[in-house]
Amino acid sequence: MERFYEFRAGKRGPWRIDRIVSIAGDPLPAASHLSVDPISLSDGRASAAFSVRGVRSNERYTSTAERSSLTQRQAGLDRPEATVAVLIPITKSADWWGMAQDERRHVLEEQSRHIAIGAEYLPAVARRLYHCRDLGEPFDFLTWFEFAPDHAAAFQSLLQRLRATPEWTYVAREVEIHLTRDT
Amino acid sequence: MERFYEFRAGKRGPWRIDRIVSIAGDPLPAASHLSVDPISLSDGRASAAFSVRGVRSNERYTSTAERSSLTQRQAGLDRPEATVAVLIPITKSADWWGMAQDERRHVLEEQSRHIAIGAEYLPAVARRLYHCRDLGEPFDFLTWFEFAPDHAAAFQSLLQRLRATPEWTYVAREVEIHLTRDT
Repeated sequence: MERFYEFRAGKRGPWRIDRIVSIAGDPLPAASHLSVDPISLSDGRASAAFSVRGVRSNERYTSTAERSSLTQRQAGLDRPEATVAVLIPITKSADWWGMAQDERRHVLEEQSRHIAIGAEYLPAVARRLYHCRDLGEPFDFLTWFEFAPDHAAAFQSLLQRLRATPEWTYVAREVEIHLTRDT
Repeated sequence: MERFYEFRAGKRGPWRIDRIVSIAGDPLPAASHLSVDPISLSDGRASAAFSVRGVRSNERYTSTAERSSLTQRQAGLDRPEATVAVLIPITKSADWWGMAQDERRHVLEEQSRHIAIGAEYLPAVARRLYHCRDLGEPFDFLTWFEFAPDHAAAFQSLLQRLRATPEWTYVAREVEIHLTRDT
């Protein structure tokens, strides 16, 4: 499995950027297209409107039972009907990272039901998480959501519910990059 | 706080390498000295017998109560009497990384008492953990232990007890790099 990926915004790429929406903190510059490619961390950074890197890694919060339930319901990426995607880079606050593992888990799931809420939108909204805090990147996570245009309203409802949770008081920067597959 | 560090083995450095002991998996080549320096991940790698990189990151398993107890007991690095150090790079197996968070925590602490055993050797044996699996490095973690020569036997006992635990059945590669401060 490829583990390291770069999302690069510029003039070319298989995804057209429909809009970039700043939710919290510094915005990202405009661009017309986005590419997603496996990389090595030693690769130099090509010129781009912006680029963000992340690594597919082990699970940090999901329990065995939760994972089993998610695996039964979730769909993979690259379904033919899933022609729209949203990339959401997020940075959490120093307060978040200063908490011990059990405190972070408590806020994320017992208080905020992050995993349970996400599961309600499966299999319609497929999702893949990339970690980047420990790569020295400006963001902590990149989440890639992929779905059919018919599920756009459901996806907005997912975002609204998550943003109303206690977990989101720890979000310092968040940007939505809305994409359509450029066929 | 500096977050990214490189441990470089070669002809120079403030730590003299007394011996390198392979415990499991591939060994590391011999060298006379070790340097420890903050880096940026974009820095090129200088010529070296070997070099390993890691990042100081958030805690992955320690609970709030455990952290509070550790904080009360632990000593910092760079104590004048702590003239010896041991750097232990470790790689865990795919089975380890395939487990969910609660399973890994269960093996690490409820079955193996990793955090509790380590705490028994505080403040004599100071310790700092660096993560490197998500940097694409050959090792998953680097643990730096620092203590006075009088505590060398206690340190060996710590290693023996940890290696007898269920957690250690998931260790695929482990190397001890024994060091003395070169004054």
